[in-house]
Amino acid sequence: MAGDGTDQRALQYEQTLMYGRYTQELGVYAKEEAARLREEGGLRRSISERSRSAELLEYDKGRCAKCRICTVRCQKFLISRVGEDWIFLILLGLVMALVSWVVDFAIAICLQAQKWMYGGLDSNVFLQYLAWVTYPVVLITFSAGFTQILAPQAVGSGIPEMKTILRGVVLKEYLTFKTFVAKVIGLTCALGSGMPLGKEGPFVHIASLCAALLSKFMSLFGGIYENESRNIEMLAAACAVGVGCCFAAPIGGVLFSIEVTSTFFAVRNYWRGFFAATFSAFIFRVLAVWNRDEETITALFKTRFRLDFPFDLQELPAFAVIGIASGFGGALFVYLNRLIVQFIRKQKAINKFLMKKRLLYPALVTLLVSTLTFPPGFGQFMAGRLTQKESLVTLLDNRTWAKQGIAEEFDYIGHSQAWKHPQVNVFVTLVLFIVMKFWMSALATTIPVPCGAFMPVFVIGAAFGRLVGESMAAWFPDGIHTDGNIYPIVPGGYAVVGAAALSGAVTHTVSTAVIVFELTGQISHILPVMIAVILANAVAQSLQPSLYDSIIRIKKLPYLPELGWGHHEKYNIRVEDIMVRDVRYITLNCCYRDLHDVLLTGHLKTLALVESADSMILLGSIERSQLQALLSQQLGRPRRLEYLRERAQANKKRFSTVSQTGSEDTVQKANQEVRFQISTEESSFSPTRTGSQKPLKPALKRPSVVDRISVESPTSQHDSSGIALKNLFCANPETEAAESNDGSVAPENRKPKRVRISIVDDPDVEDDMTVREIAEWEEQQLEEQVNFNNCKIDPAPFQLVERTSLHKTHTIFSLLGLDHAYVTSIGRLIGVVSLKELRKAIEGSVTVKGVKVRPPLASFRDSGTSSSETEATELHKLWDRHRSLSLPGEHRPSDSDDKSL
Amino acid sequence: MAGDGTDQRALQYEQTLMYGRYTQELGVYAKEEAARLREEGGLRRSISERSRSAELLEYDKGRCAKCRICTVRCQKFLISRVGEDWIFLILLGLVMALVSWVVDFAIAICLQAQKWMYGGLDSNVFLQYLAWVTYPVVLITFSAGFTQILAPQAVGSGIPEMKTILRGVVLKEYLTFKTFVAKVIGLTCALGSGMPLGKEGPFVHIASLCAALLSKFMSLFGGIYENESRNIEMLAAACAVGVGCCFAAPIGGVLFSIEVTSTFFAVRNYWRGFFAATFSAFIFRVLAVWNRDEETITALFKTRFRLDFPFDLQELPAFAVIGIASGFGGALFVYLNRLIVQFIRKQKAINKFLMKKRLLYPALVTLLVSTLTFPPGFGQFMAGRLTQKESLVTLLDNRTWAKQGIAEEFDYIGHSQAWKHPQVNVFVTLVLFIVMKFWMSALATTIPVPCGAFMPVFVIGAAFGRLVGESMAAWFPDGIHTDGNIYPIVPGGYAVVGAAALSGAVTHTVSTAVIVFELTGQISHILPVMIAVILANAVAQSLQPSLYDSIIRIKKLPYLPELGWGHHEKYNIRVEDIMVRDVRYITLNCCYRDLHDVLLTGHLKTLALVESADSMILLGSIERSQLQALLSQQLGRPRRLEYLRERAQANKKRFSTVSQTGSEDTVQKANQEVRFQISTEESSFSPTRTGSQKPLKPALKRPSVVDRISVESPTSQHDSSGIALKNLFCANPETEAAESNDGSVAPENRKPKRVRISIVDDPDVEDDMTVREIAEWEEQQLEEQVNFNNCKIDPAPFQLVERTSLHKTHTIFSLLGLDHAYVTSIGRLIGVVSLKELRKAIEGSVTVKGVKVRPPLASFRDSGTSSSETEATELHKLWDRHRSLSLPGEHRPSDSDDKSL
Repeated sequence: MAGDGTDQRALQYEQTLMYGRYTQELGVYAKEEAARLREEGGLRRSISERSRSAELLEYDKGRCAKCRICTVRCQKFLISRVGEDWIFLILLGLVMALVSWVVDFAIAICLQAQKWMYGGLDSNVFLQYLAWVTYPVVLITFSAGFTQILAPQAVGSGIPEMKTILRGVVLKEYLTFKTFVAKVIGLTCALGSGMPLGKEGPFVHIASLCAALLSKFMSLFGGIYENESRNIEMLAAACAVGVGCCFAAPIGGVLFSIEVTSTFFAVRNYWRGFFAATFSAFIFRVLAVWNRDEETITALFKTRFRLDFPFDLQELPAFAVIGIASGFGGALFVYLNRLIVQFIRKQKAINKFLMKKRLLYPALVTLLVSTLTFPPGFGQFMAGRLTQKESLVTLLDNRTWAKQGIAEEFDYIGHSQAWKHPQVNVFVTLVLFIVMKFWMSALATTIPVPCGAFMPVFVIGAAFGRLVGESMAAWFPDGIHTDGNIYPIVPGGYAVVGAAALSGAVTHTVSTAVIVFELTGQISHILPVMIAVILANAVAQSLQPSLYDSIIRIKKLPYLPELGWGHHEKYNIRVEDIMVRDVRYITLNCCYRDLHDVLLTGHLKTLALVESADSMILLGSIERSQLQALLSQQLGRPRRLEYLRERAQANKKRFSTVSQTGSEDTVQKANQEVRFQISTEESSFSPTRTGSQKPLKPALKRPSVVDRISVESPTSQHDSSGIALKNLFCANPETEAAESNDGSVAPENRKPKRVRISIVDDPDVEDDMTVREIAEWEEQQLEEQVNFNNCKIDPAPFQLVERTSLHKTHTIFSLLGLDHAYVTSIGRLIGVVSLKELRKAIEGSVTVKGVKVRPPLASFRDSGTSSSETEATELHKLWDRHRSLSLPGEHRPSDSDDKSL
Repeated sequence: MAGDGTDQRALQYEQTLMYGRYTQELGVYAKEEAARLREEGGLRRSISERSRSAELLEYDKGRCAKCRICTVRCQKFLISRVGEDWIFLILLGLVMALVSWVVDFAIAICLQAQKWMYGGLDSNVFLQYLAWVTYPVVLITFSAGFTQILAPQAVGSGIPEMKTILRGVVLKEYLTFKTFVAKVIGLTCALGSGMPLGKEGPFVHIASLCAALLSKFMSLFGGIYENESRNIEMLAAACAVGVGCCFAAPIGGVLFSIEVTSTFFAVRNYWRGFFAATFSAFIFRVLAVWNRDEETITALFKTRFRLDFPFDLQELPAFAVIGIASGFGGALFVYLNRLIVQFIRKQKAINKFLMKKRLLYPALVTLLVSTLTFPPGFGQFMAGRLTQKESLVTLLDNRTWAKQGIAEEFDYIGHSQAWKHPQVNVFVTLVLFIVMKFWMSALATTIPVPCGAFMPVFVIGAAFGRLVGESMAAWFPDGIHTDGNIYPIVPGGYAVVGAAALSGAVTHTVSTAVIVFELTGQISHILPVMIAVILANAVAQSLQPSLYDSIIRIKKLPYLPELGWGHHEKYNIRVEDIMVRDVRYITLNCCYRDLHDVLLTGHLKTLALVESADSMILLGSIERSQLQALLSQQLGRPRRLEYLRERAQANKKRFSTVSQTGSEDTVQKANQEVRFQISTEESSFSPTRTGSQKPLKPALKRPSVVDRISVESPTSQHDSSGIALKNLFCANPETEAAESNDGSVAPENRKPKRVRISIVDDPDVEDDMTVREIAEWEEQQLEEQVNFNNCKIDPAPFQLVERTSLHKTHTIFSLLGLDHAYVTSIGRLIGVVSLKELRKAIEGSVTVKGVKVRPPLASFRDSGTSSSETEATELHKLWDRHRSLSLPGEHRPSDSDDKSL
């Protein structure tokens, strides 16, 4: 029994283990509950399995029993094999490839239907317009409504949330089947509408959902799926699968998912990602071959650029220009997207109206966008009739549209003629396309439907690249290369570079370069692409957060900003400069009142547990919810009833044996008896830590030598000696407690009399205490010492020392996904650093409440000398002064006075 | 003064900070020394700078002083900018590109010279042979001798060592200028010899050397280069640059370096790697263009495969076969390589002989290899006259060599005809090439010269792929595709797949796929390559460690094995099952004798510091070297002289004031005085923790209440009260100590008399103590309590709890690069886990001493049920029994007895 108890406690430790983890309280409860249920399920299952095999044996005893046994064994072996990682990854890849292909197929059908409707009504422009506009509005409205009703968590890209989840935060309801359904159907409808939205972000989320659900499903077979850290690893692999099967880009998928979701990455998971993403991409492309869409497996947007001379060295400046411009463009996109959200949120009238009619906003945005792209209308100037995919294919075309600067020589084949307009130059079409699509995409991605922004940005980038490429081609009709052969400029190559650069700038990733190679099936432009992507990133990162980080801030998810490049001061700021010195803590020997006060005044998720207020030696940390449970247990009705019962019995005994002497005195004695009885009971229940039962006085105020002794050597066998000691040093604990709680002496001594009478009559205690009595009883209960036995304590919360640099702290926080860390000095707790402080320190003195909208060029306006530097030195001074007063392991005069007591 | 002292101590903490780090002792000293020197240098520099600007002002007071000030400011600004990361990375990329290009150029010249010699002597076969053989023998012997003399650290690939360094281990002399020179020149000579060696591994090392040297050089300008964690980050980027500039493969370089050197990777560094590697690859290729070798920037081994139909779906099984076969081949290569090393080490006669004539082994191996490749000899059957680069170019050729299975239709252009032999089929040539090169490469990479194995393996893989491809082409002359166009099979594509698969299998990486794309400039075979690489890795990883891990084990570098795929039991083993329970520790109040004993009996690098043997609360860890320093300080000559001086003064005083009474008594009193004087002196020197001066008795044996009080409330002002307390409880500490050290009472009391006489005469104390007296004095000194003030204590060593799973422990160890972690239970130290235990637990019960040679298929012979599982449960039982005896925070009866004293 005792062993079980400790085992269970240890198991509980394991859950909060190693390092504090930011958890939304409900999520934790849900998880624990789920784990318990699963455990029970496992037991039931194993029992049923055993009985089944026994049945089989019974049944076939006469015939070939051996054969049957063999079958059962094979079955068992197969089931055990199901636990292997690779089976899970293959299943995940397979499912995601199917989902991706089906979604693509459905989207294609939707888009075809729109075209067919539009084409069939070419007799009447108004009807055409109506068809062109109504169709997307209906689809988007349905998508928005459907996700709103089924699972609002499915809205948006999902990458910001996955980033948060992979940091160790539990987001409620984010990985459920409902969300999966809502996301898949919502996404199909949203993309089927032809709006400038992407499928890549949502696919990361869908893959994670898939992994989570598959994990749950597989846990029916094997035990391994119940391990939390394994599930996190599988989620990381799933993110890679999501991107991989969306673009048929396994390598780019893995890298993109790493860059977008992690700050530290386990090479272990990289493996898993590669395996699953490759399998998924393979199946995804094989499905296309089987469906006779393709002859063999090739790239999604295959290009046919010249291999022998892909580009000239002298073209590199143009590529660099694309990179830098894309950097600014990407920052602008993020800014614009956030500005729109901000605007709608701030305008209270609009907001109120939209909140009431939730579907109005999507419908309005869709109406606006589709009106502007109406092909016979403004759409004719911006290739409005092309779908996103068609636009991209034409933009990556290896022919030059504007040879010799004349749009007339345009080689009209397939969809490419959409870019040609009889009156307008192809350059104008491209510029219009870029400008219009830019704000349209920024606006469209704010619609509350499942959607990503990667693909629209990618297309805009390709268009921008094409524009530069066509300009170059017009400028150098015979190419730049001077000696020998003539190599004309390939504008399609510029489009590839532009696509990679702009999408890289918006997402702050370099792996878009790899995605581009895998999408186009050509790697010949590797150096221009890499240079442009790196330049774009350098520019964009210095101006704005990435789109995903921006959404994280908008949604107020917990996050840790990245350390920028070359911020030297980050190495010079120390933890002591940023830590909070006024740590909320509880002592091992505190009473429930202290607990109550601490819970009332602070709002921290976890509280430090120190040995005593005097030594401040950090023993561990306890979650707030645990303390709340402790408190409610102490003050709860069951305990009160128990108290009444105890008292009744004590009174009975007293009535039968003790003669009526000074009643005041007896009451006190009875009280004492009750208390000790309770504590003995508890000690038999969980014998590990009952020695911590100590005199009922607030330990925070008057620590004594005896206190410390009893903390350090708690015992289960020596309760009596402990009590004796207590009596020795604190003559009457009860009265002392009453004294400290001045004013309440009288009622406390008066109360039991009346209650006693009612209890003597009834052995099955009734709760007949008045409100006032309950309050009194609670007061009394609050004075008792806390029993931490049934409380989950994280025994090794993460510790830093005061000289740890900000840089190192950031590393540790992001490595371990910490929410907070305690700062100790040789065991003594001296401060705490949480994500908030770290965030503040990294982002300067600006307090980030919700979103901080900074115009794209704001950082250039920042003065060169950072304020944090001076702040730090000032804090240093302060701390030096402070330290001279309270050195670690220091001895205060008052303490020595205490000792001489 | 006091503030400075603590600051300095805090700084010292910072160095050993956050988590224990495996450091070779000398390395630490060297580093500290270097840091100190640098700091001094910085001071000197800033002073000189100030004076310089002052001088300038003086000089130009008359003329345009403002202009001068402006110049100085600009200069300062530029110098401060030098600290930026990107400048460092660009410089690194530039330097490495230049080094790579120069090395390549030199190698090309060397190889040309050999060909020229060989070609010029075509009149006489014997002379030809002599020239063919002598040339590489001389070069290799020179390379081996040169590196042996200049820097033996430069031998080999360098990747294993970089992996170890990036784990946080300091390897001595590994990143010095000498090593750089030895590596570059040695590598050039080794590769110039035409032996099957690679340049990629050494380039990782060269890039790291370059980064380290550049860091040192840049630290002359800015302060940021002194930060250790930054340097580690820069080394990680440098590894990427190394691969990137070697193959002009920035993406593959970054990924390969991540896979090969890290287990956890910061996305931050990934950025840096991309930036530097791209720049480096760019410059590397631009140099080729400027040198008129190339027309524009293209891939290193450009292929020209068909774009529209790269491969048929039905060819995939063939690709899969290449992958699986490469997996076995890769494992065999690693095994063979290690077997050769083992064989030479084991054969003591050979070993002895070779150790004497160090250059004989390289010469012999070179002689053997070059004899066999002699073109007119056996070389004619294995394309012996082609250099490595030429072989690769021909193998990746997009023409089919064996059309219709007949070698006669061979399209002889360029070097391709080397594969053709009048008598022998091209298949035989390929098979011979593969078999011969296989063992030659495995043998050649054991030569003690700077060399890698990547490129030879890559070429062998390409040959194997080609073989399969040619076979397929012979089997299906018109391709497999049935409907429509005829697409013949492209054997070059198979060569690409084979190269990626075999090199991936040997190095256990998937990024070879990316390297292959970047090397060939074509990504059309992405799916076959990925599938083959993943299959090869799956096979190879289940059979053998990677080549680099194998070398790490051969060299006995500290390492942590990877957790394999799907080893479920890893989630079930707990830290308590593998930890060492018998932890070596020292207590805060121990005496020097305990220190002495602990140092004598154990060989651990760091020791735990606990509050007391009773409470076992972990306070921190101390390095062994620190303790040794403490001990030698306590027993050193300066202290003895000081002791003599003190005693002389005390005697003087006594002679002048005190009359001669009972001499025995007075001596004792004098002794006491001396002791207290010393302790007071120390307390004024560093006032933080003198309260820990306690009665001179071994705290391990008899902890008392008083002990604890004085530990918890140490004081600098209350020394006297502390002494009073001590006197109160331990009436005569000196005699008590003497008693505990029984037998030594008499000499101790006799000794001072004689010495006293000699001192009274001479105030400048002479060390005239006899050996016996010194021994006695040392005995006495050993009884004193340890003063930890001047000792670097790591106040936050990493802690685990007993229920932490092996999986989590592995993660934490590899994340933080730990060497050991303490296992605590609510503050109490209960065990320690080091890399060794973890390694044992992961690798099963096998003790890995040096190399464990396992035949490639050994793991298939392992029984399915792992022994660790049963071991774990047994240990669990044991632990449960153990725990019931010593619970955390438990109270022993003896303690309560103590309390009643």
